Amino acid sequence: MKPMRSRHSVDTYTEGVLSGDRVLLGQAITLIESSLDSDQELAAAVLERILPATGKAFRMGITGVPGVGKSTFIDAFGSYLVAQGHTLGVLAVDPSSNLTQGSILGDKTRMERISHHPRVFVRPSPSGGSLGGVARKTRETMLLCEAAGFDMILVETVGVGQSETAVHDMVDFFLLLMLPNAGDELQGIKKGIMEMADGIFINKAEANAMDKARIAQAAYSQALRLFAPPASGWHPQVAMGSALNEVGLHTLYQWMLDFQQKTWQNGYWEINRQEQSIQWLKDTILHRLSHIFFESPAVKAHWEQTQAAVTNKEIPPVKAAQQLLRLWQEGYRQPGIDKPEGQGA
Amino acid sequence: MKPMRSRHSVDTYTEGVLSGDRVLLGQAITLIESSLDSDQELAAAVLERILPATGKAFRMGITGVPGVGKSTFIDAFGSYLVAQGHTLGVLAVDPSSNLTQGSILGDKTRMERISHHPRVFVRPSPSGGSLGGVARKTRETMLLCEAAGFDMILVETVGVGQSETAVHDMVDFFLLLMLPNAGDELQGIKKGIMEMADGIFINKAEANAMDKARIAQAAYSQALRLFAPPASGWHPQVAMGSALNEVGLHTLYQWMLDFQQKTWQNGYWEINRQEQSIQWLKDTILHRLSHIFFESPAVKAHWEQTQAAVTNKEIPPVKAAQQLLRLWQEGYRQPGIDKPEGQGA
Repeated sequence: MKPMRSRHSVDTYTEGVLSGDRVLLGQAITLIESSLDSDQELAAAVLERILPATGKAFRMGITGVPGVGKSTFIDAFGSYLVAQGHTLGVLAVDPSSNLTQGSILGDKTRMERISHHPRVFVRPSPSGGSLGGVARKTRETMLLCEAAGFDMILVETVGVGQSETAVHDMVDFFLLLMLPNAGDELQGIKKGIMEMADGIFINKAEANAMDKARIAQAAYSQALRLFAPPASGWHPQVAMGSALNEVGLHTLYQWMLDFQQKTWQNGYWEINRQEQSIQWLKDTILHRLSHIFFESPAVKAHWEQTQAAVTNKEIPPVKAAQQLLRLWQEGYRQPGIDKPEGQGA
Repeated sequence: MKPMRSRHSVDTYTEGVLSGDRVLLGQAITLIESSLDSDQELAAAVLERILPATGKAFRMGITGVPGVGKSTFIDAFGSYLVAQGHTLGVLAVDPSSNLTQGSILGDKTRMERISHHPRVFVRPSPSGGSLGGVARKTRETMLLCEAAGFDMILVETVGVGQSETAVHDMVDFFLLLMLPNAGDELQGIKKGIMEMADGIFINKAEANAMDKARIAQAAYSQALRLFAPPASGWHPQVAMGSALNEVGLHTLYQWMLDFQQKTWQNGYWEINRQEQSIQWLKDTILHRLSHIFFESPAVKAHWEQTQAAVTNKEIPPVKAAQQLLRLWQEGYRQPGIDKPEGQGA
């Protein structure tokens, strides 16, 4: 929880963000990231005001294993996008980051070209907290960036736990970066990631890695064909290139244009966005309900022993659940629903 | 909700099941499937009593697209297992089934060899209800079968919605049946299924489908190598064969033995079972909390308009969630936690 340097009125934040004032945009994001009750209220009011101005950007998620070259890629592809006339917001979801470590995006020295570009806004991952909390803040930051006029949003994730799913669920297009060594088990994509990808970019296809890259491209292309056709109507593509040498970036941009045209026409673009909003609503509710339940004194007092009893087969899981629910119901008074989602939520 | 034909004491059910009495086993399962409050209470008491006698079977999940030959496969592989000296319980999770349709397992004529075998117990999918309800009943039926002495449980799913995940989460080994036409998009495995498989069996590799089957085997083997090594330490295998001609069944059995030996030694077998129990506990709790919330009069009265407001960007999802939670909290009195999971749950 950082102390607020300056705190403005709802009008000031709103007008600042809508006029594209980068200082006020940054301060509004800090407000969203604060866990102070008063800040949360203010942030919610600002968010509601700017909501009609959101939704016009192309939202792209980017993931890949450590070492795949995400920072270099975002620097190169970001520069390419800016050269095409776009304005760019670069965000991250990294629940493992904290103030001392800093996320990849916090290391701006690795993104020399875009980190100080006047048409690019880079914001590191919110620090601390659960994935749910970090993802919520990034979602809301994305909306603020859109309201400030950025028409292209890149959301990076370092692939910790379920963070890819969280990012996938907030973007239009999900890009997976891979290394040119398919078949090598060390590559270790986590289960389900490849099947979420709208595109795979085999990075570092340079000099004597070209043969490996071609084999990888064929292997991933074939693997993608094994999956059912996606609801978007867009068939995931595989390309190879080099962010370092700026090779293959145009292909990715072409994918984005094709994807957008196709899904605007077939209606998937809007349907997906609406479903994402409803999913966000439901996720928030279930997250809060779960918090109310598991943080209640009655459940906390019995959780360890209930788990042990289930593990030791002393009580069937369903009966254990019923007992805990009864205990919770009896103890349920004022569960603090109104409290904001703080560091532990 | 079927009327109970006969209703016994907890002792009668318990002793009947533990002694392997098939009539009482069938009646105990009917009790579990009933949605009458009194039946649910009785079922819970029986379940608690038989619990120490459960857990000794090898639990195998089986899935595959329609047309892959699941009934023929289960008939052939079940006969093979019985010939190896095993006793077999065959269950199903099929939320789409109902009394008139009947699930695949309901069509016992397609499983001529095992359906009336004295050492095989076949139970069709519980009818009606949500996936959560159907999965719970199948889990509990599995426990009853184990208590009755069956040492091999096959749980089939027809692959509707999230039913593969539900089955995967209740078994030790998950087998995916495929047709010999890899690369053909009509095969259409749903996202994430292949990555859950501990083994893939390419069925119908007969006569002039052999070439295709070999290509499929190579393609799936390569695709599986792209994924991270599983926590079990067992590397998923791909085999081809023909259930109709009883080819390849011995390989599958060998996989099961190898898998069991490996995971007993490295501890994964027990850890996975314990994690499945805790997951079942948590799932049950979240399912009930969700039911309590979304079925409350306050939330039901506002859900449609809240969804519309979110979809139309009149209100941010997080704020909408807060409003609904406040309405629910105000209206929360006696949410009926004690009620069993009925048809709507």
